[in-house]
Amino acid sequence: MGLSVNKLAEELVKEMIADPLRYNVAVHELSSGAKVIDAGVEAGGGFRAGLKAIEICMGGLGDASFCYGTYGELFLPSVFVSTDYPAIALLGSQFAGWQIKVGEYFAMGSGPARALAKKPSKMYAKIGYEDQSDVAVIFLEADKLPDDEVAKFVADACGVSPKNLYMVVAPTSCIVGSIQISGRVAETGLHKMFEEGLDPTRVLFACGCAPIASIHGKSVKAMGRTNDMILYGGTTFYVVDYEKDEELAEMVEKTPSSASRDYGKPFYEIFKEAGFDFYKVDPGLFAPAYVVVNNVRTGSTIAAGKLNAEVVHKSLTSS
Amino acid sequence: MGLSVNKLAEELVKEMIADPLRYNVAVHELSSGAKVIDAGVEAGGGFRAGLKAIEICMGGLGDASFCYGTYGELFLPSVFVSTDYPAIALLGSQFAGWQIKVGEYFAMGSGPARALAKKPSKMYAKIGYEDQSDVAVIFLEADKLPDDEVAKFVADACGVSPKNLYMVVAPTSCIVGSIQISGRVAETGLHKMFEEGLDPTRVLFACGCAPIASIHGKSVKAMGRTNDMILYGGTTFYVVDYEKDEELAEMVEKTPSSASRDYGKPFYEIFKEAGFDFYKVDPGLFAPAYVVVNNVRTGSTIAAGKLNAEVVHKSLTSS
Amino acid sequence: MGLSVNKLAEELVKEMIADPLRYNVAVHELSSGAKVIDAGVEAGGGFRAGLKAIEICMGGLGDASFCYGTYGELFLPSVFVSTDYPAIALLGSQFAGWQIKVGEYFAMGSGPARALAKKPSKMYAKIGYEDQSDVAVIFLEADKLPDDEVAKFVADACGVSPKNLYMVVAPTSCIVGSIQISGRVAETGLHKMFEEGLDPTRVLFACGCAPIASIHGKSVKAMGRTNDMILYGGTTFYVVDYEKDEELAEMVEKTPSSASRDYGKPFYEIFKEAGFDFYKVDPGLFAPAYVVVNNVRTGSTIAAGKLNAEVVHKSLTSS
Repeated sequence: MGLSVNKLAEELVKEMIADPLRYNVAVHELSSGAKVIDAGVEAGGGFRAGLKAIEICMGGLGDASFCYGTYGELFLPSVFVSTDYPAIALLGSQFAGWQIKVGEYFAMGSGPARALAKKPSKMYAKIGYEDQSDVAVIFLEADKLPDDEVAKFVADACGVSPKNLYMVVAPTSCIVGSIQISGRVAETGLHKMFEEGLDPTRVLFACGCAPIASIHGKSVKAMGRTNDMILYGGTTFYVVDYEKDEELAEMVEKTPSSASRDYGKPFYEIFKEAGFDFYKVDPGLFAPAYVVVNNVRTGSTIAAGKLNAEVVHKSLTSS
Repeated sequence: MGLSVNKLAEELVKEMIADPLRYNVAVHELSSGAKVIDAGVEAGGGFRAGLKAIEICMGGLGDASFCYGTYGELFLPSVFVSTDYPAIALLGSQFAGWQIKVGEYFAMGSGPARALAKKPSKMYAKIGYEDQSDVAVIFLEADKLPDDEVAKFVADACGVSPKNLYMVVAPTSCIVGSIQISGRVAETGLHKMFEEGLDPTRVLFACGCAPIASIHGKSVKAMGRTNDMILYGGTTFYVVDYEKDEELAEMVEKTPSSASRDYGKPFYEIFKEAGFDFYKVDPGLFAPAYVVVNNVRTGSTIAAGKLNAEVVHKSLTSS
Repeated sequence: MGLSVNKLAEELVKEMIADPLRYNVAVHELSSGAKVIDAGVEAGGGFRAGLKAIEICMGGLGDASFCYGTYGELFLPSVFVSTDYPAIALLGSQFAGWQIKVGEYFAMGSGPARALAKKPSKMYAKIGYEDQSDVAVIFLEADKLPDDEVAKFVADACGVSPKNLYMVVAPTSCIVGSIQISGRVAETGLHKMFEEGLDPTRVLFACGCAPIASIHGKSVKAMGRTNDMILYGGTTFYVVDYEKDEELAEMVEKTPSSASRDYGKPFYEIFKEAGFDFYKVDPGLFAPAYVVVNNVRTGSTIAAGKLNAEVVHKSLTSS
């Protein structure tokens, strides 16, 4: 196919490196030559860096913009995302599928670098994509900046020289964190459908919209809020090419967050009740509130789920 | 005036030609030298190509972007369009006013090339615009790609060499088809007001928004849905300069689709009841659901019509 | 900090100068060498010039885009603005804090030039910003184009040569006037919070959305409508870093327009009842309808005010 998510993302990262004040980021070069773009650890980041982070995570194969949404009594800035390469951009790149642990350092890794390191390899086999690139771009959702040890670990896994590695970093608890997670709304739905058995390469186009979570300084609470924006405020639209409408409709019915047994409360409450043990939370909860799937083969338009303004409100206003 | 819609659109087409993967289009050069940009026949097209197609159709004199809209229980991605040159961009370029029949080949032609071929000439006399350009850009809503015979026909009518002809092609039944038709929301309203007697050069600024239709594989059903997005989901805003408010208000009252005797059902049903004979459908039906006209001369703001979420929903979910 | 709002805005102005047809503006060079960009006095301006004017007013440190909003029965094009440098972009640049009177000429001056002339100086002391720039960019809300006398006055106050002065001009009563005033929605809220005692440098990020007013040919009525879009239709979101939630909540409660004694009627009516004397209108009225403030220190999300579609409607439809 010739599409390199890492090369495309590199162009976007270079825009940030060329004008850090514009994006309110800080750029560091480690002694290994790896570049760190701090978009929320010590630097402030912002709306501009947030959109750019989403587009980097989608490997340059998607676009992000802002709009305003009404969620019951709340009016909130929201993120709109779209892609013409859903399997590659969302699962092959944006999906946060690479847990990075190097010594004391921990980060959720996402973005194009995953397509080089094949994290997880099963997913890449399924979508039939691999990247050929001597540069790697990773997005790290982390509270700290990575050092050379982390750079070498990531570069090695990607088969690139640390000199050619770009690491964009932002915590969950910052404006870029809030924005980039809402920008995962379409990815979350595609991943859920994938789990329900849909071949993701059958998804031709995808878009979605989700409100931006207000920031909470505690990571676990920020994680709760940002998840809730998708679970209770996220809307999505997918165009798929599928033989049987009934089979498709069954999968779509199971896709929105409301199909989960854990649905109905802010994520933080669910997580707390599960003793802060991720393995006790229904993985099926991680999905957009609302899903529309259009089957080009039959022309059918299947909608499932609904926006839940009450939980969006509760999530953002609870301390 | 010095504005060439063909030269401006050529710049946009060249962006697609320079990076076909970005837009998910295929570019062919015919033996005559004419360039074909396939945005949905064999190529997939997508959200990016859809926006670009709208801007090409408006002759580079308008902008398109995405937003999200609420239509009753449905949440749908929508297109926003705006132009500071309504008469030229919408009627002189975007209006689908050139039926192209060459042998077996049929396409609805729209975009800048019309301003060279003067299709229809009466409209160009009315808006007082003509383009001086040795390049021509046409958008073809068609199920097949055009060949050299079509290229020569169009180039001849435009008075340009086939080498200087660009043909962007997409069927009604594809994502670019859905997006570019929703992008005609402001054009449809201006055309209706023109039919109601308003001099289009009195319209100073125009914008609008319409939901994007889900795709139906059958052309006639796709045509129905895409029309319905404008007829029942389209909103518009026009700034005009007009002497008499009462006369203007009368025209505005007659503008929205709801002023038509055929209003109230999905277009496909109306068309079917008319025996699939276009001449039996009220031409006055082709208009946005909702129209706001602001008269700068008096400051008045006149609204007519209303969004009809029920028919939008019915149109998209009926098979 | 190294950020020059004048230098950044100059880049945006140069885009307009390089392509006046694109923006539907007229560019004049005065004999002093000062450049005048007419975006609505004799030239028409439009949607493009409107967005660009907002971004110029924010000193290149913010972005503007269009979306569509629902205000009761009205569907209106709206402006979305965001900035990662609220104190500098909104108070240090966009705020209309410089009344320019030169002979018979009168204009409300806003934009980056204020940061050179320090208008008002107290505000610059408070936000701790000063610009070092040999070019100056000013936005003049005025019914007439400025002449060399005005240029020299502004250039002198800014300490630049008239050759290096750019003046973008648009009346209140034109499309650029409507758009750029709606683009002040986040600025208005920040200014109000500043008046209520909040240190504006504690505001880390800001965004907002407001409908675009239909145009009224009489300046005083146009002023009324454009104000009403913010007062009754404007929504805002701020991220702040503040020690005490209770103190912050008290300020937020006082921020929206509804906290003013004069709230509830279209601005024109209020102004008329005050005998068209600005000093008799409560300055606290000038604020967005709806305010959300997120305190990163505590994670709290405080909302105050509400959209008032009824007054938006009344304002736009009254003659």
